[in-house]
Amino acid sequence: MKHIVKERLRTIFLGKRLEDAALASEKFNVLWGIPVFASDAISSVSYAGEEILLVLIPVLGMASFGTFLPIVAAIIALLGILVFCYRQTIDAYPQGGGAYIVASDNLGENAGLVAGAALIIGYILTVAVSACAGAAAVTSAFPALHPWKAVIALVLIALLTWGNLRGMRESAVMFGVPTYLFIGTMLLLIVVGIVRYASGSYTPAETQIVVSNAQDTLLFVILRAFASGCTALTGVEAVSNGVPNFREPAQRNAKTVLYAMAGFVCIVFFGVSLLINMYHIVPNEQATAVSQLAEAVFGSGSVLYYLVQVMTVVILTLAANTAFAGLPLLMALMAQDGYLPRRLIYRGSRLNYSNGILFLFVAAAILVLAFNGDQHLLLPLYASGVFLSFLLSQLGMVLHWVRRKGPGWKTKAFINGFGTIVTATTLVIIVIMKFLQGAWVTLLTIVLLVWLMHSIKKHYAAVSDDLTIPTIEAARALLLGGDEPSSTPAPRGKVILPVQTLNRSFIKVLNCASDFEGAEIEYFHVASSEEQAKKLKEQFAELGVRGTFVYEITHYRNTEEVLLRHIEAEHAALPPHGHLTVMMASLIVRNRWARPLHNQTTQTLIRRMEQYRNVYVFQVPYLI
Amino acid sequence: MKHIVKERLRTIFLGKRLEDAALASEKFNVLWGIPVFASDAISSVSYAGEEILLVLIPVLGMASFGTFLPIVAAIIALLGILVFCYRQTIDAYPQGGGAYIVASDNLGENAGLVAGAALIIGYILTVAVSACAGAAAVTSAFPALHPWKAVIALVLIALLTWGNLRGMRESAVMFGVPTYLFIGTMLLLIVVGIVRYASGSYTPAETQIVVSNAQDTLLFVILRAFASGCTALTGVEAVSNGVPNFREPAQRNAKTVLYAMAGFVCIVFFGVSLLINMYHIVPNEQATAVSQLAEAVFGSGSVLYYLVQVMTVVILTLAANTAFAGLPLLMALMAQDGYLPRRLIYRGSRLNYSNGILFLFVAAAILVLAFNGDQHLLLPLYASGVFLSFLLSQLGMVLHWVRRKGPGWKTKAFINGFGTIVTATTLVIIVIMKFLQGAWVTLLTIVLLVWLMHSIKKHYAAVSDDLTIPTIEAARALLLGGDEPSSTPAPRGKVILPVQTLNRSFIKVLNCASDFEGAEIEYFHVASSEEQAKKLKEQFAELGVRGTFVYEITHYRNTEEVLLRHIEAEHAALPPHGHLTVMMASLIVRNRWARPLHNQTTQTLIRRMEQYRNVYVFQVPYLI
Repeated sequence: MKHIVKERLRTIFLGKRLEDAALASEKFNVLWGIPVFASDAISSVSYAGEEILLVLIPVLGMASFGTFLPIVAAIIALLGILVFCYRQTIDAYPQGGGAYIVASDNLGENAGLVAGAALIIGYILTVAVSACAGAAAVTSAFPALHPWKAVIALVLIALLTWGNLRGMRESAVMFGVPTYLFIGTMLLLIVVGIVRYASGSYTPAETQIVVSNAQDTLLFVILRAFASGCTALTGVEAVSNGVPNFREPAQRNAKTVLYAMAGFVCIVFFGVSLLINMYHIVPNEQATAVSQLAEAVFGSGSVLYYLVQVMTVVILTLAANTAFAGLPLLMALMAQDGYLPRRLIYRGSRLNYSNGILFLFVAAAILVLAFNGDQHLLLPLYASGVFLSFLLSQLGMVLHWVRRKGPGWKTKAFINGFGTIVTATTLVIIVIMKFLQGAWVTLLTIVLLVWLMHSIKKHYAAVSDDLTIPTIEAARALLLGGDEPSSTPAPRGKVILPVQTLNRSFIKVLNCASDFEGAEIEYFHVASSEEQAKKLKEQFAELGVRGTFVYEITHYRNTEEVLLRHIEAEHAALPPHGHLTVMMASLIVRNRWARPLHNQTTQTLIRRMEQYRNVYVFQVPYLI
Repeated sequence: MKHIVKERLRTIFLGKRLEDAALASEKFNVLWGIPVFASDAISSVSYAGEEILLVLIPVLGMASFGTFLPIVAAIIALLGILVFCYRQTIDAYPQGGGAYIVASDNLGENAGLVAGAALIIGYILTVAVSACAGAAAVTSAFPALHPWKAVIALVLIALLTWGNLRGMRESAVMFGVPTYLFIGTMLLLIVVGIVRYASGSYTPAETQIVVSNAQDTLLFVILRAFASGCTALTGVEAVSNGVPNFREPAQRNAKTVLYAMAGFVCIVFFGVSLLINMYHIVPNEQATAVSQLAEAVFGSGSVLYYLVQVMTVVILTLAANTAFAGLPLLMALMAQDGYLPRRLIYRGSRLNYSNGILFLFVAAAILVLAFNGDQHLLLPLYASGVFLSFLLSQLGMVLHWVRRKGPGWKTKAFINGFGTIVTATTLVIIVIMKFLQGAWVTLLTIVLLVWLMHSIKKHYAAVSDDLTIPTIEAARALLLGGDEPSSTPAPRGKVILPVQTLNRSFIKVLNCASDFEGAEIEYFHVASSEEQAKKLKEQFAELGVRGTFVYEITHYRNTEEVLLRHIEAEHAALPPHGHLTVMMASLIVRNRWARPLHNQTTQTLIRRMEQYRNVYVFQVPYLI
């Protein structure tokens, strides 16, 4: 049987089907939770510093290195504040859900939807940006691959999709070990780099940089650089969003992962930035800042240089994986609330949200293609959405504490209040500094998404109102010809059999029409000439079957139109509760390649007849 | 009603529907026949000379201009021979059909298919090459548009498709006048150019050309240049192919068009080539040879220069139109013989072969995209296929005369025999010279197409064998439960109603099930738990409807699979001539945008049930 073969293929590709009961065991402990939930923030080391420099250097030249480290320090301080704030979110929301849940819980539906939309965009951009930055690490090491950057990014995304379709646990094991290797490699880079610099065995090349006519004030430039660097903080919310994905005690494990993440980001981000500053690295089109740094520290072409590049690709892949863990969960949550298509709720055969995973794949792939794999163009879209969700989450937490009170609520509200002010300030800076470069796209998309979500909710409510029957009595009242004396008698439906020629497939339909014993049967024929119609009519008479032969002549080769108009007229003339059955053979060609050889007339007709409420289609397959 | 609105839109877009009887009046006289059938050959002026020079100049440098004109003269001589030969084809085949008909008539099925395949490829390339060359004329005049060359070519093809979907006559009127303007413009260019040159008011710039280390012999280079120039002759067969598209007297009109075409090509091609030679035009990436020539003669930026460019675009558009006139006709012919999908036979509402037109659009668009709008890369694919069809056509004509005899058959056979030798020689030259550059692709595609056409023919024959019933007696014997004493009694089909919950759409199906009065009815439910199933079973008992309630439990969220496996089992257990009816509601969402919000479960199930020969699907639409 075909479905057995298909099942076997799906097992090879996706792994064995998992029972509903297997859900509990597919959860993370701290060791595997770190790579899955913290890699996004850790990975930003590979591009955040570079983004800051890309703003500073064209204006300030080598003087950039005077302001670079303070900006990095400010971002790390911001990270510290966020960790403090999200710690409280994990405490308050053990069921997870992050900004979407917190905002809708405390600030109402619209704030929740805005936060949800911002998170969705953020997750998609995480995948797109990380894949492009990973591809940049590859092309930095192998400049010959530069024209294939977008393709490399797409391959990375496709591999991640596949891994995630196979299921949660395996994705953690598959990607876990390398994160720790990445952290180790970066620590090695930092230590060796500092030692080499301190021992004086390296002198930075004094590159000549043409500085543009700086019309912006220094403050403006620094704020813009800060806004660019804030991309380092994307992904901080993933942990609080995914609390139910942790093993028990879930909250404690989640908090441990949150701290570990902050610690690693702090050390690696600051260490690498320090080195970039010491070595006066100037990022360019061909090689990323980290690539140049590793070359300077370990020597061009050395094994350790390639190790850094490989690990960068791996950590960025992991960062994208954060989104694959987070987005489908978030979308399932929002779909359960009726704001997104219901198919996002269902878990696939491997207990993951396969539709959400596939959605993420498609959305990220489109972004990578549209921006031709250039992360510098994608990053301005990124931070504004993420900080909007941070802000709503913090604001929601303040109201949460204020309303619920409970022990120490004032301190807690104060911490989240401070977080609100800080994230609001950062968001304003980001939106102003990045508005024309892309923040407007993000904000506009958020507005559209919120509108879309409202419409979806309204649609589902209408459908449910339409379909639901409150009680069995109500259902019984709807039955036609039931035993109740009150019930309407069921009128017999007329059966129409469209016919072109008397061939085997039509005879098969004819045989089946005997199922409708008492019904009126009509054979409807569309001819291009009177003779053709007469001839078929005679054949029917000779055949001697029950029913009336009706025909219509057309000179416009539009057989389908004529048939449909006939059915429309019959439909219009139906009595109340009446219906019409159209019986048709559909030619099923087993050979897939031979299908385009047949006019899909039957399928087109069926699709077009769907508009008539009381026209039922009886399809008799004729297999070839 | 919706279909009235649609009909009105189609009238605006495609024009009024035409009756079958309108076919006769949609034909060409000589005046409009020339632009439609001869524009391909005439338009080649804009690229054929350039292709010759692109072969010569890298090897011979400025010495190229010594061999350029003789090559042009040889190609014009070849044109003369072909005109003589095709004149005889028009005489012998008033019903038209060109190489495909001639070859299959006289040389058998396979030769006919090879010729047909070669012609199909030729027509597609005509569109692709002409559109790209037209785009090159645009980008020569406006270099800023250079990156958009492929897009411009696609727009040209799309406009042509639209024009041709509107119908034949209008395409002739729409494009007719400009052809004559093109010829006039070219004559003006030639006369002014010769006068300027003769009066000594122009001295060719002696460009320095780096000549590659010529390892090829002079003969080899000249032959390759000749092979490149042969693209000028593509399209000569269009007239003989389309004889039935001419007004009566069709044959005489067709011949007049053939002569007119040859005359125009001869004058314009030779004239322009002469000027290119005089003015020492060297084609480059940025500007075509004709564009440079017009600039030299009329002055850069002058009105007349732009007129030449505009007219070049127009004539190339017309050339592409030749294919839009020829290919759908040829494919309809081949489809009638059963070698191509049958849908190519049907004329659309405007009496043209709309499916063939759309096929040509898609195929040409793919080529333009794949070759990024570069006609220099497309041209090597072109000539080999065209000359293969010429050769088969000539060889077929020789056999035609030899077999039929008739007055003067010896002279006629001799003329076509000479044509055979000349086209065979040219074909050999083209294939050898262009093999690696693309001729191999063309030849391989021809082989594949021929194989495909054989398969299609075989498939249709098998289907027809399967469906046809020779006599009414045979048809009567196939009827179940007929009046004949011999006939098999019709077994009643069991009716299965899959059910998830008791909602309105299910009640609608339930009401309809009463149509099957005597049949066994089964309600089949897939539950994820025993309680869920029990609850529904109770509701059914309370409702009190006829039929058995059957359920199955699954823990793998694969409701569809379980249902399908149940149906498969029931299907396997059917008695001979038995059948099974599956009744299902299909949720029809009127809002198009809301459709993705519903799992298309019903549609998927219907598609998957098609594999079971005796499972019939009864679809009850539930409109929302």
